[in-house]
Amino acid sequence: MTRLWDKGAPLDERVLQYTAGEDHALDDRLVKYDVQASSAHAEMLAQCRLLSAEDLARIRAALLEIAALHERGAWRVRLEDEDGQTALENLLVERIGEAGGRLHAGRSRNDQVLAALRLYLRDAVEQLRAGAVTVADALDALARREGDTPLPGYTHLQQAMPSTVPLWAGGFSAEIRDDAEGLSSTHRRVSKNPLGSAAGYGTPNLAVSREETRKRLDFATTQEPVTAVQLSRGKAEAQVLFEIALLMQDLGRLASDLILYCTQEFAFVELPEAFTTGSSIMPQKRNPDVFELIRGRSATAQACLMEALGVAAKLPSGYHRDLQLIKAPLFRAIDLCLQTLDILPPALAGVRFRREHIKLDPSIHAAAEANALVVKEGIPFREAYRRVAAKLTPTK
Amino acid sequence: MTRLWDKGAPLDERVLQYTAGEDHALDDRLVKYDVQASSAHAEMLAQCRLLSAEDLARIRAALLEIAALHERGAWRVRLEDEDGQTALENLLVERIGEAGGRLHAGRSRNDQVLAALRLYLRDAVEQLRAGAVTVADALDALARREGDTPLPGYTHLQQAMPSTVPLWAGGFSAEIRDDAEGLSSTHRRVSKNPLGSAAGYGTPNLAVSREETRKRLDFATTQEPVTAVQLSRGKAEAQVLFEIALLMQDLGRLASDLILYCTQEFAFVELPEAFTTGSSIMPQKRNPDVFELIRGRSATAQACLMEALGVAAKLPSGYHRDLQLIKAPLFRAIDLCLQTLDILPPALAGVRFRREHIKLDPSIHAAAEANALVVKEGIPFREAYRRVAAKLTPTK
Amino acid sequence: MTRLWDKGAPLDERVLQYTAGEDHALDDRLVKYDVQASSAHAEMLAQCRLLSAEDLARIRAALLEIAALHERGAWRVRLEDEDGQTALENLLVERIGEAGGRLHAGRSRNDQVLAALRLYLRDAVEQLRAGAVTVADALDALARREGDTPLPGYTHLQQAMPSTVPLWAGGFSAEIRDDAEGLSSTHRRVSKNPLGSAAGYGTPNLAVSREETRKRLDFATTQEPVTAVQLSRGKAEAQVLFEIALLMQDLGRLASDLILYCTQEFAFVELPEAFTTGSSIMPQKRNPDVFELIRGRSATAQACLMEALGVAAKLPSGYHRDLQLIKAPLFRAIDLCLQTLDILPPALAGVRFRREHIKLDPSIHAAAEANALVVKEGIPFREAYRRVAAKLTPTK
Amino acid sequence: MTRLWDKGAPLDERVLQYTAGEDHALDDRLVKYDVQASSAHAEMLAQCRLLSAEDLARIRAALLEIAALHERGAWRVRLEDEDGQTALENLLVERIGEAGGRLHAGRSRNDQVLAALRLYLRDAVEQLRAGAVTVADALDALARREGDTPLPGYTHLQQAMPSTVPLWAGGFSAEIRDDAEGLSSTHRRVSKNPLGSAAGYGTPNLAVSREETRKRLDFATTQEPVTAVQLSRGKAEAQVLFEIALLMQDLGRLASDLILYCTQEFAFVELPEAFTTGSSIMPQKRNPDVFELIRGRSATAQACLMEALGVAAKLPSGYHRDLQLIKAPLFRAIDLCLQTLDILPPALAGVRFRREHIKLDPSIHAAAEANALVVKEGIPFREAYRRVAAKLTPTK
Repeated sequence: MTRLWDKGAPLDERVLQYTAGEDHALDDRLVKYDVQASSAHAEMLAQCRLLSAEDLARIRAALLEIAALHERGAWRVRLEDEDGQTALENLLVERIGEAGGRLHAGRSRNDQVLAALRLYLRDAVEQLRAGAVTVADALDALARREGDTPLPGYTHLQQAMPSTVPLWAGGFSAEIRDDAEGLSSTHRRVSKNPLGSAAGYGTPNLAVSREETRKRLDFATTQEPVTAVQLSRGKAEAQVLFEIALLMQDLGRLASDLILYCTQEFAFVELPEAFTTGSSIMPQKRNPDVFELIRGRSATAQACLMEALGVAAKLPSGYHRDLQLIKAPLFRAIDLCLQTLDILPPALAGVRFRREHIKLDPSIHAAAEANALVVKEGIPFREAYRRVAAKLTPTK
Repeated sequence: MTRLWDKGAPLDERVLQYTAGEDHALDDRLVKYDVQASSAHAEMLAQCRLLSAEDLARIRAALLEIAALHERGAWRVRLEDEDGQTALENLLVERIGEAGGRLHAGRSRNDQVLAALRLYLRDAVEQLRAGAVTVADALDALARREGDTPLPGYTHLQQAMPSTVPLWAGGFSAEIRDDAEGLSSTHRRVSKNPLGSAAGYGTPNLAVSREETRKRLDFATTQEPVTAVQLSRGKAEAQVLFEIALLMQDLGRLASDLILYCTQEFAFVELPEAFTTGSSIMPQKRNPDVFELIRGRSATAQACLMEALGVAAKLPSGYHRDLQLIKAPLFRAIDLCLQTLDILPPALAGVRFRREHIKLDPSIHAAAEANALVVKEGIPFREAYRRVAAKLTPTK
Repeated sequence: MTRLWDKGAPLDERVLQYTAGEDHALDDRLVKYDVQASSAHAEMLAQCRLLSAEDLARIRAALLEIAALHERGAWRVRLEDEDGQTALENLLVERIGEAGGRLHAGRSRNDQVLAALRLYLRDAVEQLRAGAVTVADALDALARREGDTPLPGYTHLQQAMPSTVPLWAGGFSAEIRDDAEGLSSTHRRVSKNPLGSAAGYGTPNLAVSREETRKRLDFATTQEPVTAVQLSRGKAEAQVLFEIALLMQDLGRLASDLILYCTQEFAFVELPEAFTTGSSIMPQKRNPDVFELIRGRSATAQACLMEALGVAAKLPSGYHRDLQLIKAPLFRAIDLCLQTLDILPPALAGVRFRREHIKLDPSIHAAAEANALVVKEGIPFREAYRRVAAKLTPTK
Repeated sequence: MTRLWDKGAPLDERVLQYTAGEDHALDDRLVKYDVQASSAHAEMLAQCRLLSAEDLARIRAALLEIAALHERGAWRVRLEDEDGQTALENLLVERIGEAGGRLHAGRSRNDQVLAALRLYLRDAVEQLRAGAVTVADALDALARREGDTPLPGYTHLQQAMPSTVPLWAGGFSAEIRDDAEGLSSTHRRVSKNPLGSAAGYGTPNLAVSREETRKRLDFATTQEPVTAVQLSRGKAEAQVLFEIALLMQDLGRLASDLILYCTQEFAFVELPEAFTTGSSIMPQKRNPDVFELIRGRSATAQACLMEALGVAAKLPSGYHRDLQLIKAPLFRAIDLCLQTLDILPPALAGVRFRREHIKLDPSIHAAAEANALVVKEGIPFREAYRRVAAKLTPTK
């Protein structure tokens, strides 16, 4: 990416690189959604008599064709296009001429890109949610497999109370399902129709219908007033990133446990060989790299959230070019989370607990004994606690 | 706070200070909620025949008395108490002796503090939500007051399209109401009953009823399995912090606009005198300090979110003492947000737009003109755009 | 802190609370340094014939007296004072009347508070540096104590190569000394004289000497031009916070090791009893709370850095009230780091390695064996590696 | 990047993608430095009689050839190579057989990659430093060009004191030079020789000389003890990221000023046309996109720092695979900063101040007047202040 600068490229090219930079590549995943939103916009224009039926037909046909070509990899958003929206319009005009130039009536790149982004997020969030549920299912399967395998329950990383593998796995499963619900709940902010707000101040002299595009794109509400649209840039994105950060945190903590459990000292689990790697100088090593990278990526996910929040911070109202920079951490976090959710089910399927190595410290039953004393002798818990403690101390 | 160290205090005291430090003071706001949760726990114990009716009566009476004394400021959680839960139990035992020692059966400080914290959060979130709505109402009142005051609509901070004060205020009002809804939605994670999970592994040999405490405390669900409870530490807290960060970001951006609008160069608004301050060397100054601090605190709020996420990151499952550190950024953010929400309505009530200074650049109507051409002449938007652009360029 | 709002306090008081809030309390630690800087400023004024010798004498005497009273706790910066600078000037005028009013010639609160802050930072950084060295010394003492205690060397938390306690402790000691140097290196940004820049634009019509105050306060350079001073707000602070974050990260990682080593499964170390705490329901527990809180506070330290960077971000040049908010995370991080540095030496002095439990996996010598083969047989390392690996695999 | 998953790729490939992912591509920029470090390592081995003169000659020749081919783009690190270090060794063995297999004696990928990374950082930091100086020079040139153009000096974004364009530009220039020095000072942590630490525990049975590689690679010191090397992973990187964050913050604040100054309301500056962009619906617009993106990227730079700190946080000592994830934010921040430093000098060269629009509020001279009164009448500043204030108030 530094090439342009290394070679002393002409100024215009460097400015284009600085402004459109990696952004044009990021836009590739939005093309499909831009086509959806553009079709809906065109249909609305026709409905409002701002586009003839013939032009609509030509626009729709051309958009479908362009989308199909993109799907097949026949074209990509290029740096010279500046962004995906411009690329799309250029291709349209190339194909159907003047009619293509009619599509941009009543919209701006500001609402256009936001519509595409929210449609994309709707899909991405659903993929993330489903992926999280699959990981939770894998944990439940593990719990069933290891039905009665005991496990120390830790507090402060000290053996505290007796637990079991199903309780351990079930805790993570429950929290990951909670994250899946959290992802679904981002729908509230994602599903607001931005179309018709144009650059953020509506479309004076053009009577467009925001309700028409809302219905066609199945947005839950139309974002009102028009000035709210640009002001909300980054909020739905940040909520998706926040829920990803929570989910990755739960996964990172699961990884922490497994890395610990497969040390020689704990030796509670054996990781599937396909998910461990060797060393360049220590032939004996089987390292839990996949789990270390899950843990590490939980830090990356947090940084993505911070980046998105930081970009929007303190900006006066209205659109600013800064906001474009939110896409990079958003897509980065979605990708890393999807990949993590995909790699975990096969990894968890291969996790085997080594029951023979799992030793519960005898003192781990102290609280249960105190509880039993409470029930049996009717003494206050505090007294039972002291009695059990007195019995334990000398053995320390 | 550094006093202890400066004076070469004895080791035990320093360890106590390092571990219980500011935490004991933070616990003061939880006392009221700890009493609620403790009463519910006692009632459940009685229901499950783990506590006699007489002991329950004495515990409830004593708890109410202790709470009333705390409300009146007659006692505070002290450093020596280590934390609010211990303080409460000590006071109880002091008052009613052995019966007080029976209360801790079937619970641990881990689930006890979490119950108190979630009950507190339920109230705090409702206060924040109501405060946000009040700020939105103040913006709507401002919009009504300035019914037809024009305002340039900006993109890239350049005059772009005609707007109005109501559109400007309405955008913020809508987004702040969106934040209020966001705060409400944290209820899902806040309203899970942790009681009965004890240290995170349940209460072997003691048949407690988690459903009983859930009902009495009006939690929406009981968090299952017991291992999920400690694993979820920090998640509800982080979501509250996230929604606070979004709200503070919207308020910070509102502040950015007002700081800009009250420069001599814009001169669009006059801020209420009570909300501005003077200078120690420039007698003529009226500075928008309140708004600068709102903007600045939007950065603080983001850091509080990061702090909470960072504390929980990568920890193995089970309780760790680190988790106690989440309270400080949580309370800090709640307080700064409540104070900001409280200061804004009177501040906004005094904001006056200086219509005589608000100048719309003539070029601001270019998009509207292009739109009119589209409608009138039926030409494509792109052609209308080029025509209007051609007319404008020479005057630049 | 929310009291004011709860009770429906009058507006002025609430604005004061919102703007001066916790800030006035933070200023207490700056009083001593403000007195230093104010004395130097007065001497410079006298030198430049902007203050008579008599007035100088009275100002100096009064400042010393005020400082001594503050040192004894006889006064504190109060909310009504708004900030420490105002408090100081008010006390001065109270004592010596008109002469006190002459002190503010040629300065503003902007350069005044910055001078006090940098003088404070110079001391605080030196305290931090010395504290870090003391911790490194404690690690070196531990290394000497445990002269030949073996320890597995880990990579990926898997036993990898033979190591020793001195190597383990020595690595941390070296890095903590590196952090101590890092703290010293903040001197470059801390030691710039801000005095004479006043509000950020110098002192027109008043010929002050910036070199005079620089010499008297032993700043390394005078920050030029005057506009750089306010622009640099937060930079020295952020560098101190960055170095604290690195140091706390090293200490947090040391804590991670010790928490791991004192699990029942590793059982490599015994922590000193004074540094562990018990449980409210599990009488057998000895929890490594101090080390958990060190680890947790490494996350807090990072958040303090982020907060300071976030507050200054994107602000136009010149002073803004937002910048005052940097003090809170700065002091918070300094305090938590000093306390951590103070608690560690006695804690480390009591750490005992349990040699009898430290088991090196036989495979840990594989790399050394491969190395020996290289030397003995002159074969390439890659072949030696394969030979040792072949021998190991079946035993897995 | 999500392709693999979309297509249901086989497990091994997905694990490889998850672990080596974007990392192999990031390693491309390290190849040149890995070759340097590998040559120095080979020379040291020969010196220590662990490699014959012939093998050394063949290794050096092959390394040079491989580097030249890489420079010409004839090969790239591929996903199948896993990382750049493995790619290099494979190419070497391909070319010179057994001799290539002798190179890895006495080193591990852990110290190998760190050596390459530090050599790279040494160059990158120098490029960043030089770039910062060039921007400062451009600001100084602007100051000379606009020799006596007046400018209001702002505090709280209110006109406060008279200033000039040279004072404004000079403040930024000074702070950017300060950042350049800050970048240079990272040398202390960057210039530590990691070679000879191997996986982090030295090279038992192989008497390598760490001093030999230090000298050949011109590192300032050898990092001792060997365990410090992996413990320090991320620290030099974080310091570089911190200094980049400060520099980007200064540049972002410069951008904030220019964005403000080129509003229609301020109208203080005209930006060069090549650095502004148009609008898709408002033909009249000239938007300061380059400056908005500089401001936005100052937020990205902060997030890169947080990401690097977050990845290393809380890890036990020794190498962990997580640490590999530091490269991505490190390279991202270096690239964005270099590009920003490259785009600014031509941008600043085209900035023209519109002297005719720069209006200083008459009250801006109030402090100077008060100062004059102090000198002329010998009255205390506080009295002069009150007098000037009294005169001003009615005109408000």
